Amino acid sequence: MADSWVNSAERIGADLHVELAGSGSRRAALTRALRSAVQDGRLAPGTRLPPYRSLAADLGIARNTVSQAYAELVAEGWLTARQGSGTRVAPRAEPVRPARVAVEPPPRAAVGPAHNLMQGQPDAGSFPRGAWLSCARRALNAAPNEAFGPGDPQGRIELRRALADYLARVRGVRTTSDRIVVCSGFAHALRLLFGGQVLRGPLAVESYGLAFHRSLLAAEGVRTVPVGLDEQGARVAEFSQRPELKGVRAALLTPGHQFPTGGPLHPERRAAAVDWARARGRVLLEDDYDGEFRYDREPVGAVQGLDPERVVYLGSVSKSLSPAVRLGWMVLPEQLVEPVLAAKGMREAWASVLDQLTLADLIESGAYDRHVRRMRQRYRSRRDQLLAALDEHAPHITAAGIAAGLHAVLRLPVGTEGAALKAAARQGIALDGLAGYRHPDAVMPAQDGLVVGYATPPDHGYQAALDALCRALPPMR
Amino acid sequence: MADSWVNSAERIGADLHVELAGSGSRRAALTRALRSAVQDGRLAPGTRLPPYRSLAADLGIARNTVSQAYAELVAEGWLTARQGSGTRVAPRAEPVRPARVAVEPPPRAAVGPAHNLMQGQPDAGSFPRGAWLSCARRALNAAPNEAFGPGDPQGRIELRRALADYLARVRGVRTTSDRIVVCSGFAHALRLLFGGQVLRGPLAVESYGLAFHRSLLAAEGVRTVPVGLDEQGARVAEFSQRPELKGVRAALLTPGHQFPTGGPLHPERRAAAVDWARARGRVLLEDDYDGEFRYDREPVGAVQGLDPERVVYLGSVSKSLSPAVRLGWMVLPEQLVEPVLAAKGMREAWASVLDQLTLADLIESGAYDRHVRRMRQRYRSRRDQLLAALDEHAPHITAAGIAAGLHAVLRLPVGTEGAALKAAARQGIALDGLAGYRHPDAVMPAQDGLVVGYATPPDHGYQAALDALCRALPPMR
Repeated sequence: MADSWVNSAERIGADLHVELAGSGSRRAALTRALRSAVQDGRLAPGTRLPPYRSLAADLGIARNTVSQAYAELVAEGWLTARQGSGTRVAPRAEPVRPARVAVEPPPRAAVGPAHNLMQGQPDAGSFPRGAWLSCARRALNAAPNEAFGPGDPQGRIELRRALADYLARVRGVRTTSDRIVVCSGFAHALRLLFGGQVLRGPLAVESYGLAFHRSLLAAEGVRTVPVGLDEQGARVAEFSQRPELKGVRAALLTPGHQFPTGGPLHPERRAAAVDWARARGRVLLEDDYDGEFRYDREPVGAVQGLDPERVVYLGSVSKSLSPAVRLGWMVLPEQLVEPVLAAKGMREAWASVLDQLTLADLIESGAYDRHVRRMRQRYRSRRDQLLAALDEHAPHITAAGIAAGLHAVLRLPVGTEGAALKAAARQGIALDGLAGYRHPDAVMPAQDGLVVGYATPPDHGYQAALDALCRALPPMR
Repeated sequence: MADSWVNSAERIGADLHVELAGSGSRRAALTRALRSAVQDGRLAPGTRLPPYRSLAADLGIARNTVSQAYAELVAEGWLTARQGSGTRVAPRAEPVRPARVAVEPPPRAAVGPAHNLMQGQPDAGSFPRGAWLSCARRALNAAPNEAFGPGDPQGRIELRRALADYLARVRGVRTTSDRIVVCSGFAHALRLLFGGQVLRGPLAVESYGLAFHRSLLAAEGVRTVPVGLDEQGARVAEFSQRPELKGVRAALLTPGHQFPTGGPLHPERRAAAVDWARARGRVLLEDDYDGEFRYDREPVGAVQGLDPERVVYLGSVSKSLSPAVRLGWMVLPEQLVEPVLAAKGMREAWASVLDQLTLADLIESGAYDRHVRRMRQRYRSRRDQLLAALDEHAPHITAAGIAAGLHAVLRLPVGTEGAALKAAARQGIALDGLAGYRHPDAVMPAQDGLVVGYATPPDHGYQAALDALCRALPPMR
């Protein structure tokens, strides 16, 4: 038969497809159907079969017929029956997998470097499971029924209100909930803005930044033009001075903590960037990827606060909580709200409503603040430990940038980065050099350095990672 | 000063940006900073300020300085202090919002039709909150730390394993976890497949289907070519017969329950579609949008089971649980797994890992089966109630298709659909006519009908909705 699944297939118990077709009695058909389901692996070893009564009722056959079929398969060794645990597929029943469909692969071996100092990840072991679950319980129980319906593509109002208050309080962002669009993270925001034709290129970007963002923009057909960096951050005067930059229609900056080199944008340049956007009708994109993590009592508010109509503010919980919670947000100028929603589409909600409700409760209840404070202390002591190790073992190497974030850049003498990376690899360290962050069209002098993420290693392994790192650094000349 | 947020801004208590710049004492600076934060609305009425001790420690100033600043603002009326509840922003403090940023908008009024019979939504009031929360607690507590790290773009292995077993058991899908890619839903799957250039158009689609899918495909540059429908489902023989269809590289079908007209694809046509894909090197996309909801004991397994190497099977929890849980899945032929993962990108995880872990537990624990069974009974009785109402009040109108799903199509005499929709609107009913589902290039004769979603109305309003519907139907001629 061409299609054995179609004819007279019926549904049993805890939802199983069986075929009762073919000649012979109902009992024979059921026995044959169950046997073949076990044989070809659709019924996995250990799976519990429905009780006689419910299967019989579902199929409209006698209970006795079901019990006889089960008994036959127990006798054949396909099923096992034990008092109190019901009838199950026998553990040793070896499935005959269909041709060309491989058996379940073994889990990938967790092979990794001895020391993971890659930037970009918060400490996965610190996710506040208890607080998250408490907030989820409160939020889901309190949610109106409509929360489980199709949903607002802009994001749940509970979360947008909580974010409007939180970002105003903590980051100096000036907004209201109707200017906020919830998304799945920074990458999703870029896709909506550029893939959705809300903004167009060319786009000015900092000469050092994430290659992932550049390739994502390139995939959306957006040309990026690098602007120089110095100790005061992005050289925003180049927007008006360098011919290559005169045509850009927007600029993506990391004003709070230049990524990855680590400096804040100088106050005069913050103002100058906003002035440029105003005068030329351009838009600034502010990537505030780790704004909550500054350790030196000199936090810098969002540039967005200077002109909410010229700056798109972008944030997420990927650094503050976990990238496993796929939630981020855009704070938009008024005139961009409708275009972004049009790009998002009425049916494309993407971000889990359950997570949105839970995060809103986490923020409103103060649990988010407490978590951020705890993580700030943790990362700050990680950074202090790194600096102390350098001080002791490699005093000629300095960490660039401000006391902030989840990573530091160790400056290296020109021409030594490649050798240092090789030495690090020999020490079993995974980390990046600055070269991978450099825009291919950058004209500023190349900088040598190592990007050290200090958030990821477990406590017990961190000192060993630092020791290995110091051994990999070039010696004093 | 151009940028009041930059200079000497400091962070307080439960994370608040205040500016301690300017002349005068620390106390005066703190008082001024807090006052302005209240004035411009960043500190919302009711917000609790940090205790003296912790703010003083954070800012490195004397406790007394903080208490004096608070006292001054209490005296001015900006703050209130009450024993046991700490110091808070006064409820009557009217924020002076920055220019051009509107005040928090009032919640949108919930204006809707009296009777919502739109298709496409499960019953939002039936979301299994308790089961979901129990599974979330178990899953999050059991998850390894790495679950909160960057994550596998293919989806959590726990969920892919649970889905492989579940889909085999319930839908006759033949797969293993390494062929499954988790996504945010059907729309996301289409974007990955066609936006990611894994598959290319032109794409054959059924002459009646969701306009949303057609426009999404059009946005990805995919031309869709409609194939005819009759009482046996899609006329797959047209793939080889009609010149317009000879160039298509893939076909999107709803074999289990044609959407929206409601028939299953005939067994011979299921086989013929697979034969066509094999012979011509084409791919079938199987949209199994409501495969779990069949009420007549003749469930039809997935076409995918006929040839896992030629069929991409697509499903989600949007109908079975809620569209608020943004989770769906693709079951892929072996050769498409790598291309889809490449299109997804290593950093684009999208789907919440927390929800993935929870859904895996929901499936494995049997709670998902129990929920689906409960909903099947509910929707089945909804459908029975609709048929009974027609039988009584409009016996000349028949419901097309099989006893399945969350909607039914009421066939109307040719040329009467527009008038029926207007009559329904007068009765306060929201629902669609078939015309909106018709492909603009369809050549088959147009059908008149109403698409009645019966999942959404609350129990107490359903009979009234049906009564209104029957009043809106064209009278017997």
